[in-house]
Amino acid sequence: MSTQTRILTGITTTGTPHLGNYAGAIRPAIEASRSGDAEYFFFLADYHALVKCQEPERVMQSRLEVAATWLALGLDPERVTFYRQSDVPEIPELTWLLSCVTAKGLMNRAHAYKAAVQENLDAGDADPDRGVTMGLFGYPVLMAADILIFNAHKVPVGRDQIQHLEMTRDIAQRFNYLYGEHFVLPEVVVDEATAILQGLDGRKMSKSYNNTIPLFVPEKELRKLIMRIVTNSQPPGEPKDPDGSTLFQIYRAFATPEESAAMRVRYAEGIGWGEMKQVLFERLNGVLAGPREHYQALLADPEGLERILLEGADKARAIATPFLARLRAAVGLRRLA
Amino acid sequence: MSTQTRILTGITTTGTPHLGNYAGAIRPAIEASRSGDAEYFFFLADYHALVKCQEPERVMQSRLEVAATWLALGLDPERVTFYRQSDVPEIPELTWLLSCVTAKGLMNRAHAYKAAVQENLDAGDADPDRGVTMGLFGYPVLMAADILIFNAHKVPVGRDQIQHLEMTRDIAQRFNYLYGEHFVLPEVVVDEATAILQGLDGRKMSKSYNNTIPLFVPEKELRKLIMRIVTNSQPPGEPKDPDGSTLFQIYRAFATPEESAAMRVRYAEGIGWGEMKQVLFERLNGVLAGPREHYQALLADPEGLERILLEGADKARAIATPFLARLRAAVGLRRLA
Repeated sequence: MSTQTRILTGITTTGTPHLGNYAGAIRPAIEASRSGDAEYFFFLADYHALVKCQEPERVMQSRLEVAATWLALGLDPERVTFYRQSDVPEIPELTWLLSCVTAKGLMNRAHAYKAAVQENLDAGDADPDRGVTMGLFGYPVLMAADILIFNAHKVPVGRDQIQHLEMTRDIAQRFNYLYGEHFVLPEVVVDEATAILQGLDGRKMSKSYNNTIPLFVPEKELRKLIMRIVTNSQPPGEPKDPDGSTLFQIYRAFATPEESAAMRVRYAEGIGWGEMKQVLFERLNGVLAGPREHYQALLADPEGLERILLEGADKARAIATPFLARLRAAVGLRRLA
Repeated sequence: MSTQTRILTGITTTGTPHLGNYAGAIRPAIEASRSGDAEYFFFLADYHALVKCQEPERVMQSRLEVAATWLALGLDPERVTFYRQSDVPEIPELTWLLSCVTAKGLMNRAHAYKAAVQENLDAGDADPDRGVTMGLFGYPVLMAADILIFNAHKVPVGRDQIQHLEMTRDIAQRFNYLYGEHFVLPEVVVDEATAILQGLDGRKMSKSYNNTIPLFVPEKELRKLIMRIVTNSQPPGEPKDPDGSTLFQIYRAFATPEESAAMRVRYAEGIGWGEMKQVLFERLNGVLAGPREHYQALLADPEGLERILLEGADKARAIATPFLARLRAAVGLRRLA
């Protein structure tokens, strides 16, 4: 087993990444991966995408955009292992091996499944499992395989994923008990300090509220969106509260502590909302212009992107293939000779 | 798609094959495969074995014995595609794709799962899912992948498997509906005329009754087992009823209709049980001596057996690999370029 700490991050491939995703998840993950004190694995969770999305063109296009986004924002495929889940057939194979040691009762208790059942019950549906596929129900086993195939030590996740990590540990323990100590029990890493950005309407920026600023819209569109951010009706010159201001909150996520402190002074001095929007636009555009160009160049070269992902898959499989062979041998699927 | 009819047979790899398995399943399957009017696929269901058996050495040894048994009895790996399920990674991968279109409700209704739940309820267990793994629960999806990856037209199965075939058809239909007509809907073939042999005690020969005659026991052991077959206490010379006689019933399964008719006459004439046992022993030993020798030779050459199975896997994957690529493209897991 590897002696270096392995940190694994799964990337959802549905939807278009926005400023909130960047500040809350993408940027901290990329920054950590550049620190170089661990082995980092980043994967596009496209097998998982099939649970929710049965439109092939969308699955395809999201995968392309999300891969280009992370690379444009500085993920370095030379330094980390960046791959598509669906390029590692060892993952679904391990999923089957793990299924055979996973209690169904464990899955019965998964939050996502229970929420789906509750929704059916609330709707007065006679079938509590209506609309639930085996993909949705068994998803935590696939997730366990994602993690265990690389024996990742740490998995940074959102709060809603903590239970899945606990399940991964349960499954790994059961396998180890039956077949010997093959798996590291992964630790969950929940970054409580993670920035949550507000969206155009002042609520949490989220696709479901339709209030997002997508990362790589053209400059003109970016300006238009920022001009739409909701403010109160205080006139210029009147002192303003930065802590209740969406504009300030977004600015702070892209400024140094010193710059933020200076901006607080300008709020106290009564900076006008129009001016503040212009300042914020310039700041965001300054941060995003380079990546935006890089992103467009990546999208224009799908062959190059494909090559990067296939190289990533090769690196991933250099670990996964021999490890799965060991696991197969452990359960009895050995060569006869 | 292939224009020739494809017939697929899964072979359980747990337990040691006995005379009842031979007469009821192995012999008719091998005979059919020699008729040459279809493409035959035979596979060792070793992924399935993991659902029931968590003893690696037993999984391993059964696989070896079962493969050697079928080959010794005349399965021709040149004429059919004979492979191990676990040598075709396209199968677990397709299992995931199918999971995402399979309603959990379908699995809730599977007989094997319902029987397990009922057993828990009858035992007064608070948890109806006690002892049920995701492997047991999701097994019909794996079985669908076994069949659909080769677009088999016909699947000969026992009565207890009819429901699984219906599920395979449901899953295939759902996939076709969502993603286009990729799958043939397989037809179940239940051979009603299949011989069911009686065992040593006169009940159906079955491992669970511990009354079997294993196929390849040494000659001396075979004689001993036959001598133990239960008869009534009619003395030699007294006319006997062949239809109530286990000895006659086994004899008939290994004799021509003419020979069976002649034996009926000898029963009417009052053949003694001792003599009949000797006749049956000679008949069975005559049938089994050649295969027994072949079987021992195969077991003594695991390298050779392994080579045969790997060649079978190559033939299987020559179909499975390009077909899975087509299915992946259909759901949106295409190359970007």
